[in-house]
Formats: sequence, structure tokens, C-alpha cells
Amino acid sequence: MRVLGVDPGLTRCGVGVVEGVAGRPLTMLGVGVVRTPADADLGHRLVAVEQGLERWLDEYRPEFVAVERVFSQHNVRTVMGTAQASAVALLCASRRGIPVALHTPSEVKAAVTGSGRADKAQVGAMVTRLLRLDAPPKPADAADALALAICHIWRAPAQNRLQQAAALHASRTAPRTATARAAASRTPGRRTPAAAPAPTPDPSSDPSKGRTA
Amino acid sequence: MRVLGVDPGLTRCGVGVVEGVAGRPLTMLGVGVVRTPADADLGHRLVAVEQGLERWLDEYRPEFVAVERVFSQHNVRTVMGTAQASAVALLCASRRGIPVALHTPSEVKAAVTGSGRADKAQVGAMVTRLLRLDAPPKPADAADALALAICHIWRAPAQNRLQQAAALHASRTAPRTATARAAASRTPGRRTPAAAPAPTPDPSSDPSKGRTA
Repeated sequence: MRVLGVDPGLTRCGVGVVEGVAGRPLTMLGVGVVRTPADADLGHRLVAVEQGLERWLDEYRPEFVAVERVFSQHNVRTVMGTAQASAVALLCASRRGIPVALHTPSEVKAAVTGSGRADKAQVGAMVTRLLRLDAPPKPADAADALALAICHIWRAPAQNRLQQAAALHASRTAPRTATARAAASRTPGRRTPAAAPAPTPDPSSDPSKGRTA
Repeated sequence: MRVLGVDPGLTRCGVGVVEGVAGRPLTMLGVGVVRTPADADLGHRLVAVEQGLERWLDEYRPEFVAVERVFSQHNVRTVMGTAQASAVALLCASRRGIPVALHTPSEVKAAVTGSGRADKAQVGAMVTRLLRLDAPPKPADAADALALAICHIWRAPAQNRLQQAAALHASRTAPRTATARAAASRTPGRRTPAAAPAPTPDPSSDPSKGRTA
């Protein structure tokens, strides 16, 4: 599988593309950073992030996009920019129908280094070794994006096995009465939210509805 | 001027279009809510918000977009969704070259009711009166979007006067030495960040640069 990892940020948005499957050597296809100037206004910065990510999606056509999950325990100003840049990444991928997964920083560190508390240098060193690079990718945001992609490739088989096990369990314990089957059929797809189609907007969101006479 | 106010949210994103100038009666052109299902995945919800806002921009062609500025002192989960929905609003407007302004909730309340601590009911009542409506717009997110648009129309003249005064002051106190003029010419547009052009991405964000041989 080919995965684009995105370490979201407004000043530096790390991007890295990794191809491979779990248990085999992985290949780095590309790595870089989408930058936007700190003195530009927020709207233009988000447009620049969008344009940058679109170029990466056009160039590498990834099958999956892995984005770092944003937490708000960090610096308030930074976390807002990070959340907004991650929204752009999610939007760009979902608009193309590419599945997006969110991984927490500790999931990524644990997957790549074995410890959820690894520092930037350890992550960079492991990314360099796993992808057989000559030197750690710079800046750290670029290395983090590759780590996200690696994490996604390695976690995917485990996640698939969990989903298969859950599906098997659900089919064995599914209610067999007609009423229960009818109830289940009224809520199709509820068990697989990831596969849900793009939501159709509420009729009240139709601009023409709210117009004054 | 015609302003689209956006009260950002994933579950309910309030939208309202107001036309007029400060000191004259204002007219509501449209009001509504873009909704996305809470059980859909985040990427699809952001795509639905984008599609909804695009329809409002197509329909009303506003000259300005006013978005509520998000603070992170609120509930952590909610604030992330709000920040991400606001990113989509900023992106949609900036992509079209429409200027976007951010107003804090207390600025909006103070502009519309005279008190920065007004409650939802007071805001709804004043919006109803100012736009000569039969009843307060429901839900509150829709009323808040109209309040944002009104706030923007009323604050615009004061902001313009402040900017003009600042520009006048700057021209009177500008350094007159050749060195200072040269220094000033090296940072063009620094004093008007709102008018800055869309940032050109850094060369390092070019996908082809990071590729392995």
C-alpha cells in the first residue's frame, strides 16, 4: 500500500510518502514540507496548505492518508493552527475519496521506536533505518510525516484483523428474530462508520430555503 | 456591503447573509444552517461543510465573510470541531479572494446588544429587531451567524478609520534617511498583512524535490 503521512502545521506541514506492506522492507517515495509565511493572513495560509497538499496527492496518488491526531493540551495558539491545517488535509483526502486515518503521536512513536515516549531524535533515527536513508529527513516535521505513514502501514494488518474479528463476533451473536433483523436493516452501515458515504446535507442547509420573500 | 456571517460548527454551522451599511436599516438576504451527521467520519463532515458553504457563496456572492474567532477555553472536543469547520470557511472564502474577518463572540455580542456578556436570547432578540424579522431565527447558530454579519458591517467603518489614522501616523513619522527607506523597501507590505497576496509555497514543498533517485 502507498500512504501519504501528514504532520499538520501552518508554518511547516510535514509530508512523506511510503510504500510497502507490514513485514517487508518499506520504500520512501518522497518527503518534504509545505511551508506558509507566518505573516500572511490565516485564510491565505490555509489556501497555500491546500495547494501544497493537492500537489502531493496529484504526484503520488496515495491509497491512504495518515494524519496526526491533534490534541489540545499543547500551546493554545499552536494547536488552533494545527487543527486547522489538519482539517485541510482531511478535506483534500476525503474530497478525492481517499480513506484517512488519524494516529496519535504516541501511537506513531510506539509503532516506529517501540516506545510511546520516544523523542524526535529517536523517531528520526528509526525512520532513517527503516527506510534505509543516508541521513534523518530534516526538518523533524518531514521525519514525523514518514513515521506516520510507516505507522499506518504497520497498524493496518492489526486493525484489519480486529475488524474481521469484530465482524465475525457480530455475525455469530447477531439476533435471529425477524423483529431484530428488521431493526438492524433500518440502520444500515452503522457498524462501519469509516465506510459511510459522504453525508447528504440537511435540507435546511439549502441556501434558497432561507431567503426572504 | 453584503456580508456572509459564519458561526462555525460541524454538527450545525450557522450561515446568514446581511446587506447594508452602518447607520442605515439592514436587510437579511438569507439565513440557515449547514448540518453534518455526528456519526459520519470527520473527513466526510468537513467535505459536507465545504459543499454547503460553497452553495451559500455561489447563491449570494458576498463581498465579505465574517467568521467567529475560535477560542480554546471551551470544551476540548467541541473546540477542535469548531476550529476545523472555521478552517473550511476561511479556505472557501480565501480561495475566491473574498476578504475574511474574524470577530470574537464578545465583539459580536457588544456590537449587536451593547453588552459583551449578552446571552443567546438577547442576541436573538436584537437580531430580530435590527433585521425587522417576525421571530428570532432558529437555531441559535443561525441567529449568531446574522449577528456576525451585522457586527462586521457596523465595525467596518470604525476599522477603516483606525487603519486610515494608522497609515497617516506612519507616513508622518516615517524615517527619512536613505538607509531607513532601503530597509523599509526590503519588507514591502509588512504594515498591511490583510492585503498580502496568497503566499507562494516554499521551493522545498515541491513534491518532485524530495523524491528518491
